[in-house]
Amino acid sequence: MGKNLLRSRLDGSLEGNVLQFLSSLKEDLWIVEEDIIGTEVHDIMLHEQGILDKLEISTILISLEEIKERFKNNNISLDPSFEDIHPFIEKCVIDDIGIEIGGKIHTGRSRNDQVSVDLRLKIRKELNNLASKLCNYIETLVNLSEKTLHAFMPLYTHLQRAQLGIFAHYINYYISQSLRTLRRIEEIYQRINLNPLGACAIGGTSINIDRKRTAELLGFAGIVENSIDAISSKDFILETLSSLSLLAIQFSRTAEDLIIWSSREFDFVEIDESYCSVSSVMPQKRNPDTLELTRGKCSKIIANPLTASIIIKAIPSGYFLDFQELKMLLKNSFELTNSIIDILIGIFSSIKVNHEKMKKAIDESYILSLDIAEILVKEYSIPFRQAHEIIASIVKNSKNPRELLNKKQIESAIFKILNKKIKLPDNFMDTMKDLETCLSKRVSEGSPSPKEVALLTMKFKEELDIIKWNLSNRIKEIQNADLLRKNLIKKLTEEKP
Amino acid sequence: MGKNLLRSRLDGSLEGNVLQFLSSLKEDLWIVEEDIIGTEVHDIMLHEQGILDKLEISTILISLEEIKERFKNNNISLDPSFEDIHPFIEKCVIDDIGIEIGGKIHTGRSRNDQVSVDLRLKIRKELNNLASKLCNYIETLVNLSEKTLHAFMPLYTHLQRAQLGIFAHYINYYISQSLRTLRRIEEIYQRINLNPLGACAIGGTSINIDRKRTAELLGFAGIVENSIDAISSKDFILETLSSLSLLAIQFSRTAEDLIIWSSREFDFVEIDESYCSVSSVMPQKRNPDTLELTRGKCSKIIANPLTASIIIKAIPSGYFLDFQELKMLLKNSFELTNSIIDILIGIFSSIKVNHEKMKKAIDESYILSLDIAEILVKEYSIPFRQAHEIIASIVKNSKNPRELLNKKQIESAIFKILNKKIKLPDNFMDTMKDLETCLSKRVSEGSPSPKEVALLTMKFKEELDIIKWNLSNRIKEIQNADLLRKNLIKKLTEEKP
Amino acid sequence: MGKNLLRSRLDGSLEGNVLQFLSSLKEDLWIVEEDIIGTEVHDIMLHEQGILDKLEISTILISLEEIKERFKNNNISLDPSFEDIHPFIEKCVIDDIGIEIGGKIHTGRSRNDQVSVDLRLKIRKELNNLASKLCNYIETLVNLSEKTLHAFMPLYTHLQRAQLGIFAHYINYYISQSLRTLRRIEEIYQRINLNPLGACAIGGTSINIDRKRTAELLGFAGIVENSIDAISSKDFILETLSSLSLLAIQFSRTAEDLIIWSSREFDFVEIDESYCSVSSVMPQKRNPDTLELTRGKCSKIIANPLTASIIIKAIPSGYFLDFQELKMLLKNSFELTNSIIDILIGIFSSIKVNHEKMKKAIDESYILSLDIAEILVKEYSIPFRQAHEIIASIVKNSKNPRELLNKKQIESAIFKILNKKIKLPDNFMDTMKDLETCLSKRVSEGSPSPKEVALLTMKFKEELDIIKWNLSNRIKEIQNADLLRKNLIKKLTEEKP
Amino acid sequence: MGKNLLRSRLDGSLEGNVLQFLSSLKEDLWIVEEDIIGTEVHDIMLHEQGILDKLEISTILISLEEIKERFKNNNISLDPSFEDIHPFIEKCVIDDIGIEIGGKIHTGRSRNDQVSVDLRLKIRKELNNLASKLCNYIETLVNLSEKTLHAFMPLYTHLQRAQLGIFAHYINYYISQSLRTLRRIEEIYQRINLNPLGACAIGGTSINIDRKRTAELLGFAGIVENSIDAISSKDFILETLSSLSLLAIQFSRTAEDLIIWSSREFDFVEIDESYCSVSSVMPQKRNPDTLELTRGKCSKIIANPLTASIIIKAIPSGYFLDFQELKMLLKNSFELTNSIIDILIGIFSSIKVNHEKMKKAIDESYILSLDIAEILVKEYSIPFRQAHEIIASIVKNSKNPRELLNKKQIESAIFKILNKKIKLPDNFMDTMKDLETCLSKRVSEGSPSPKEVALLTMKFKEELDIIKWNLSNRIKEIQNADLLRKNLIKKLTEEKP
Repeated sequence: MGKNLLRSRLDGSLEGNVLQFLSSLKEDLWIVEEDIIGTEVHDIMLHEQGILDKLEISTILISLEEIKERFKNNNISLDPSFEDIHPFIEKCVIDDIGIEIGGKIHTGRSRNDQVSVDLRLKIRKELNNLASKLCNYIETLVNLSEKTLHAFMPLYTHLQRAQLGIFAHYINYYISQSLRTLRRIEEIYQRINLNPLGACAIGGTSINIDRKRTAELLGFAGIVENSIDAISSKDFILETLSSLSLLAIQFSRTAEDLIIWSSREFDFVEIDESYCSVSSVMPQKRNPDTLELTRGKCSKIIANPLTASIIIKAIPSGYFLDFQELKMLLKNSFELTNSIIDILIGIFSSIKVNHEKMKKAIDESYILSLDIAEILVKEYSIPFRQAHEIIASIVKNSKNPRELLNKKQIESAIFKILNKKIKLPDNFMDTMKDLETCLSKRVSEGSPSPKEVALLTMKFKEELDIIKWNLSNRIKEIQNADLLRKNLIKKLTEEKP
Repeated sequence: MGKNLLRSRLDGSLEGNVLQFLSSLKEDLWIVEEDIIGTEVHDIMLHEQGILDKLEISTILISLEEIKERFKNNNISLDPSFEDIHPFIEKCVIDDIGIEIGGKIHTGRSRNDQVSVDLRLKIRKELNNLASKLCNYIETLVNLSEKTLHAFMPLYTHLQRAQLGIFAHYINYYISQSLRTLRRIEEIYQRINLNPLGACAIGGTSINIDRKRTAELLGFAGIVENSIDAISSKDFILETLSSLSLLAIQFSRTAEDLIIWSSREFDFVEIDESYCSVSSVMPQKRNPDTLELTRGKCSKIIANPLTASIIIKAIPSGYFLDFQELKMLLKNSFELTNSIIDILIGIFSSIKVNHEKMKKAIDESYILSLDIAEILVKEYSIPFRQAHEIIASIVKNSKNPRELLNKKQIESAIFKILNKKIKLPDNFMDTMKDLETCLSKRVSEGSPSPKEVALLTMKFKEELDIIKWNLSNRIKEIQNADLLRKNLIKKLTEEKP
Repeated sequence: MGKNLLRSRLDGSLEGNVLQFLSSLKEDLWIVEEDIIGTEVHDIMLHEQGILDKLEISTILISLEEIKERFKNNNISLDPSFEDIHPFIEKCVIDDIGIEIGGKIHTGRSRNDQVSVDLRLKIRKELNNLASKLCNYIETLVNLSEKTLHAFMPLYTHLQRAQLGIFAHYINYYISQSLRTLRRIEEIYQRINLNPLGACAIGGTSINIDRKRTAELLGFAGIVENSIDAISSKDFILETLSSLSLLAIQFSRTAEDLIIWSSREFDFVEIDESYCSVSSVMPQKRNPDTLELTRGKCSKIIANPLTASIIIKAIPSGYFLDFQELKMLLKNSFELTNSIIDILIGIFSSIKVNHEKMKKAIDESYILSLDIAEILVKEYSIPFRQAHEIIASIVKNSKNPRELLNKKQIESAIFKILNKKIKLPDNFMDTMKDLETCLSKRVSEGSPSPKEVALLTMKFKEELDIIKWNLSNRIKEIQNADLLRKNLIKKLTEEKP
Repeated sequence: MGKNLLRSRLDGSLEGNVLQFLSSLKEDLWIVEEDIIGTEVHDIMLHEQGILDKLEISTILISLEEIKERFKNNNISLDPSFEDIHPFIEKCVIDDIGIEIGGKIHTGRSRNDQVSVDLRLKIRKELNNLASKLCNYIETLVNLSEKTLHAFMPLYTHLQRAQLGIFAHYINYYISQSLRTLRRIEEIYQRINLNPLGACAIGGTSINIDRKRTAELLGFAGIVENSIDAISSKDFILETLSSLSLLAIQFSRTAEDLIIWSSREFDFVEIDESYCSVSSVMPQKRNPDTLELTRGKCSKIIANPLTASIIIKAIPSGYFLDFQELKMLLKNSFELTNSIIDILIGIFSSIKVNHEKMKKAIDESYILSLDIAEILVKEYSIPFRQAHEIIASIVKNSKNPRELLNKKQIESAIFKILNKKIKLPDNFMDTMKDLETCLSKRVSEGSPSPKEVALLTMKFKEELDIIKWNLSNRIKEIQNADLLRKNLIKKLTEEKP
C-alpha cells in the first residue's frame, strides 16, 4: 500500500509546492497529543461495541501509545508527503502493526470530526491553563491593591485630572475586568466541552458506535448532537477568540495607562528596569518596551477573531479546508495572551508607585472642585447646577488652586451667582484640608475611599475563591477521564491474548 | 441662566460646525426614554435619602413625565446648540420648573454614569427583544424541520456531494446554532443587567446616595461596583456586538446555502417570489436579492465589534468622547439583526423544497460510497482503510453510479485489492436500494436518519421552552421594576403638598 | 403599466418589510444627480447612434432635466414601493412622457453598469473635493510651521523625551503625510476616472452603443473595457476606502499627540476653548472633546475598508446585491473625513503653543545626551558606542541634568570608561548652552534645525503648488465635459421638432 | 564590555521570559541581509565624509562581509540575550575587530532609522519579486484566454445565469484586475524607494553625514526628508499590506468561481488532480483543497492591513516598540501571496474546461432573453421596457427555453403587451440559432464576443510589456547600486593600509 492512504482514487500525486501549500503537518504538532488520545478513545469504544476484538484493540493501543511517546520525545520525523497529521499517524500505525489491524483504526469516523475533537480538547486545556494564569494575575493585583490604599492619585477622564482617588482604585478596576473574563471562560467552556466525535464526515455512520462513551472517556460533558453542527459550526472557535480579544483590549488599555503614568511628565509609577530598554543612541532614555509590545501584541489578539470571521463567514455550511487556517489563530491568541499575562504579573509585582509626584499633581490641580461643590449642595442647599457654576466662576479666574479653599472667594462667588449672601463658617473647609478625610466623605458604594476600596478587594477575593474552585473541578473532571482512559489502556494492553 | 449649562467657565461658545461635529443629539433619541427613566429613578432615590424634599421630587417628576410624553409624541424640538441629550433634558426641566428645583436633578451623578446606565437599559431591552425574535425564528425552523424529514438530499462538504441526508438535518443544524446564541444572550445579560449609576464622573460622590435602591427601581440585578469600572469598561458593549456578530456569521452562511441551493444548477429550493427580484434587463432572472443583502448586511454586523475594538483599544482608562461612537454601532447591529431575522422567518416560512431535484442529484452521484464501504467493514470484517480503497477503485473507473451497487463489481474490486475472493450474497445491496432504509442504518446519535432527526427536534423544542421561560422571567423583572417606579411616581406626584 | 417596472414576470409583489429591507432608495439620494446625468449622457449617445430620434431625445432630456431640478429642490416624493432610485427615475420619466418614448431610456444598459457609473462619478467628485480640503489643511499647517520655527520642544519616542527639536518639525511631519495622501488620490483617480457604462448587466449589448462617446461626455479619461470587470470589480471602491483609512490613521495619531500635549502634565499646547467642552460635574475640567471624537470617528474610517473587504471577499465574480452596502461605507468615510479636516484646520488655526512649558521640559531632562556624546565622537574620536556609555554613566548616577554639561563630570566619566585621561577645554560646552546653537549643529538633512525645517517647508509649498495645479486640471476636465453635455442638452431640447 | 551594549545605564538585566517576550531576533532574520548592507553603506559614507579613516572602514567592511557570509551559510548562532538583530550584529563586529573601531559603526544613526531602512529595502525587493510572479500569472491567463475564445459559457450575476459569454471573458476579467495591481505596485514603489537613514532616533544628528550618498549607494530614488516622518510614519507599510489585500480579495473570488464551477452541479471546469484531495472516508469525493486554502489564506492577507492599522492607529507620533509586530505581518502577507500565485499558475495551466456541460447549461436556460428583447428593440422599434415585458411574459409561462425562439409565441406576447400585431419574418431568429453568431452581435466594446475578447487580450499583452519593462528598470537600478557598493567594498578592503 502506497504512502498516501487517501489518494488511491487519484492518479496524480501532489507536487512539492502544492503539498507545502496544503500542508498543516508542522502546525498540527500543536494538537498531536489530543489527536492520538482521540483515536485511542475512539478505538476503545469500537472494542467495547464489539467492532474491534481484544487482539486488535490491544495491538492498536500499544502502537498508539508508542507513537505518542515518540512525539513527546521528538523522536519521530514528519513525512512531508502527508498533508496533515491525521493520515500520517494512521500510516505510522499501519506501518507498525500492518493493514489488517491498523487499517481499522479509522472505522466509523472521519477527519472532519477528528479535527473538531482535537481542537475542542486543546482549547479546553488552554482555557483552563489561561484561567489559572489569570487567577495568579488577579492575586498579584489584589496584593498591590492592598498596598496602595493610601496612595492618593488624581483619577483621569479625557486625560484630564478629574477627581481625587487612590492608586488601589485603578488596580481594583483592572481586577473587575479580569474577573469577568474568568466568568466568560466558564461559560464558553460549557459549549466547548462537548464531543463532536461520531459526526463523521458530515452525516454520521452506520457503524454501531457509542458517542456518549467516547464523550465519557474524553471527559466531555456531553455530545454535539447534529452531525452537520459538529463539523461545520465554528462558533466555539470564534467565541474563544473573541473572549481573548476582550481580555487583550483590557490589557492594552492597562499598558497604555502605565506608559502614560511612567512618562517623565506624569512620573506616577516606575516600571522596573528589568521590563525596560535603553535607546541605542540616547543613553538617558528608559523605554517601557514590554508595555509597548503588550499593546502591539494585543492588536494581533484583537484582530484574530476578525480574521477568523472573514474565513468562516465566506463559506456555506459543511466542512471546507479554509478552516485549516483557524488552528494557528487559536494557537497565536493563546500564546500571546499567556506571554502578556506573565509580563504583566512581573511588572505589577515590581512596580514602584511615586506617592510624592501624585500628591504634587493633586496639589497643583483643581481636582477638589466637585467635592467642594457638593459641600455647597449638602450644607447650604444650593442646587447642584448653581454650585457647579459657583465653583466654575472661581476656577475660571484663578491662577492658584488654593483659592478653591478660600472661604472669602467662595462667599463672593456665591453672591455673584445667586445674588444672595451666605456666610460660611470658619471650619467650612475642614474636610478638604487633608486628602484622607476628603476621600472618606465619598460615601457612595464603589467609590475610591480607602474603606470602599478595601471592602471591594475583599469581595474580589471571595469571588476569586469560587472561580478557582470551579476551575479545579473542571481540571479534576479531565484528570478523572485521563485516569479512566489510562487504566483501560493498561488493562487492554496487558491482557493481550 | 444661559443656554449652555456646562460651559459657564469657558468664554468661547462652540461654532456651528464644531457643534455639528460633536453633537450626538439626534443619535441620542435612541436612548431618550431610558435617559429620562434613569433621571426619575435617581431623583426618587435622592428624595428617599432626604436630599430632595417632597415638593422638589413632585415638581421634578411631573416635569420629567411631561417631557417624556413630549418625546414620545415627537412634540419637542431639539435645540442644536446642545451637544447631546443629557444637558438638553436638564435644560428643559430647568426651563419648566426653574433653577431652584430643576438645578438639583443632576445632584450626585455625572454624564458618564448616566450614559452608561442609559446604554445598559437599552441593550437589556434590545437583547430581550432579539431573543424573542430568535425564538420565533427557531419555531419556524422547527416547523420546517418536521415537514422535511423525508426530503432526501445530499449533504455537502467542500461543495461536493458527501453523504446522503435529509433537508431537515440542515434545518436542525441551523436551530442548534441559534439555540447557542440564545444561551449566550442569557449569559451576557447577567453582566449587562447591573447598575453603574452612582459611579459619577469616575470617583463616586460625597452625596449620600443609595446605589442599590436605584438598581432596584431600574430592575437591575445588582450594581457595577468599582466606579472607574462603571464608566471606563466597555466590555459589556463589545460582548453584545460580538455575540450579534456570531449570529450574523451563521445567518450569512445560511443565506449562502440558500443562494447556492436556489441556483439553476442545484435547484434544490425555491425562494418565494416575494423575496426575489428581477433583473432590470434580463427578464428570465430571479435574483435572491434578500439573501444577498442578508450576507451584505451581516458583513456590517461582523465588522462592528472590530470597529468598537479599534475605538476602545486605543485609549487609556477613564471616560473619553471616543466612546460616543459606540452607541450607533449597537443600534446598527441590533437593527440589522432584527431585520434579517424577519426576512429569514419569511423565507423559511414560504420556501419550496424540490424533492425530485435533490433525489436526482443523489441518484447521479456516488454518495452511497461510504455506506457501502461500511457494509464491507461490518459484514466482511474488511479493515476500513481497505474497504475505502475497494470502493475507491470502483469509483475511479466508473461512469455510472449504479455500478457501485453491482455485486460483481464489488467482488472483483475486493479481489483486486485484498487478493482474496469474497462471495457476496444476492441481497447484499438490499439496504442500499431505497434511501429510507439506507438512512435508517445510520445509527450514530445525531445522524441524519429521520428517526434521529425527529428525536433531536423534540429536544430542541424542550430547550426552547426553557429559554422562553427564562426570557419571560427577565421581562417580568423589568416590568415589576417599571410598575414599582410608576407607582412611586404616581404617589409622589399626587401627594404634591 | 403597473408600478414595478421590473417585476412583470413575478406574481407576488414585495411586502412592506421586505421592501424596506431591500430598499436603498433614501441612500441613493447621495448619487441621484450622477444617476440622472449618466442617463442623459447615455441617451444622447443613443441619439447620436441613431437609436433614439430627435423627438425622442428631446422629450427625454426635457423630462430628465425637470426631474433633476425637482430632486435639487427637494420637490419630489420617493415612492417606497421602489427598491432603489434607478427604476424610480425610469418610472418618473415614463409617467411624464409615456411608455412609447420613456420606455426607451434604458436601452443598451443595465442597472449594474448604471450603479457603477454613478459611483465612479460620485467618488471622482468627492476625491477632488477632499483634495481641495486637504490643500487648505496643509496651508494651515505651513502657516503654523513658519510661526513655530523657534518653539523649542522635546521630540518624543516611546513617550519619553528623546532629542531636542522644535514644534514646527512635528508640523512638517504632519504635512509630509498629507502630501503623500494627495499623491495617492492622484493615482487612484486615474483608475476611477474610467467609464463602465455599456458593460450592461455583465456581457455587453447588441445595441450599437458607443462607449467612448459616453466616456467623453462624462469627462472620463477612458473606459473600463472588460464588461465583467466593469460590474464585478470593486477595487476602485476598496482603494478609495483604504486611502481614506491611511489618512484617518494619520489624523488619529495627530489627535493623540494634541491630547497628550494638552494634558496638564505636558501643557505644551492649549486647544482653543471653542474646540473643548466642560464636564457636567467637574467645573475645573477642559476636555479636548473634538480631538477625542476625531480619534473615535477615525476608527470608523479605518474599519470601513475592512467591512467592504468582508462584503466583497465572500462572493464569486459577477454582480450581487451584497454590493449595495458599499455605497454607504463610501459616503460615511468621505463625510467623516471632511468633517475631521474642518475641525483640524480650526484647531491648528487657533492653537496656542506654550514655549515656556516646553522649555521647562527640556531643561529638566537629559535630552542633550546624544548631542554631547556626538561631541565626544567628533572632537575626541571616541567611538560612538563608548561615548554612549560615558554619557550613560553620568545619567545613571545623576539627579540633575545640569551635570551633563559639567566638564569635570565628563572627564571623570571618560576616565572611568576608557581608562584614559582626556582634558576638555573650557569652552567644551559652548554649543550646548543655548538651544538655538545646539540645534544649528544638527546638520543632517531633514533634521529639526530651524534652517532645515524652513527649507523643507519651502519644498512642501512647491510640491503643494504642483498638486493644486494637477487638481485644478482634473476639475477643469470635468467642467469641460459638463459644459459639453449642457450645450448638447440645450441644443437638443431647443431643437424640439 | 558586557554583552548588552545598550543597557549600560540600567542595573537590572532582562530575565529570560522578558527577553523572549521582547525578542524579535529570529524574526529579524528576514531582514538580516538588508541590515548588514545598510550598515556597510552607512559606514562607507562615514568614511567618505572623513568620519572613519581608511583603516577603520576597511576593517569594518571585512568584518561585516564575513558576518553576512556567515548568515548566508547559517553559520552563526543567535545569542538569545539580544532583543533584536541590530545590537547583535554590532556586538559581532566589536567582538571581531575590537571596540576602538567596531564601536564606531553606529555613529550618526539609530536603531529607529536602521529598522526603517531595512524594511524599505526588503519591501522593495519583495514588491519586485511579487510583480515578476504576477507577470507570469498573467501570461498563464493570457495563454488560457487565447485557448478558450470559443468555450461558450453562461455569465452569472446573483449566481443566476445572466447572459451568454465565453470562458475567455472571465479570464480576461482576472487579467484586468492583476494588471491594476501591477500599476499599484509601481506607484507604491516610488514612495517606498526612499532613504530614511540619517533620521537617527527622531531628530537627526550633528555628525556630518550625507543622506543623499547613502541613498545613492542603496539605489534609493531620494530621501525621506523630515526626520520624524522617517521613523514614525508607517503608511509605506500599510499601503503595501493594503495592495496585497486587494490582490487577495481578487484571488479569493477567483478561487470561489473555480470551486463553484468545479462542483458536480455546475461541472464547467475540472481542477487537475494534482491540486485536489480525497476525503479520508468518502472515496468518491474530489475536493478542491488548494482553492479552499487559497480562500482561507486570503482572509489572512485581507486582515493584515487591519491588524497593522490597529497597531499604528493607537499610538502618538514617534517610534514605539508596538511597530515591531508589523514586520511579521509584511512577511506573512508576501509569503502567502507568493504561494497563492504559484498555486493559481499551476491550476490555470492544467485546468480542463468542459465545453459540453457549459453548452448544456446554456441550452437549458433562458439566457438569450436579453438578446431577443434587443432584436425587438432594434428591428421593430419596440421600447426596451416593453420588449423586456414581452419576453418576461413568455418566460413566465414557459417550461422550455426553446419557446423563446418560437416566432408565434413572440408574436402573441407582443400582441398581449402592446395590443398590436407585429408579423415577424421567418428568419427572425437566425442570429440566435448558433451561439457564435449570437455573440458576434454583441458589438459593444469589451463585450464577450470572441472578436472583442481577442482584441482586449492583445491590449493586455501590450500593457504587460510596458509593465515588465518598468519592472526590469527598477531591478536594474538596484543592481547598479549593488554593483557600485560591491566595487567600493572591494576597493576599500583591498586597499587596507
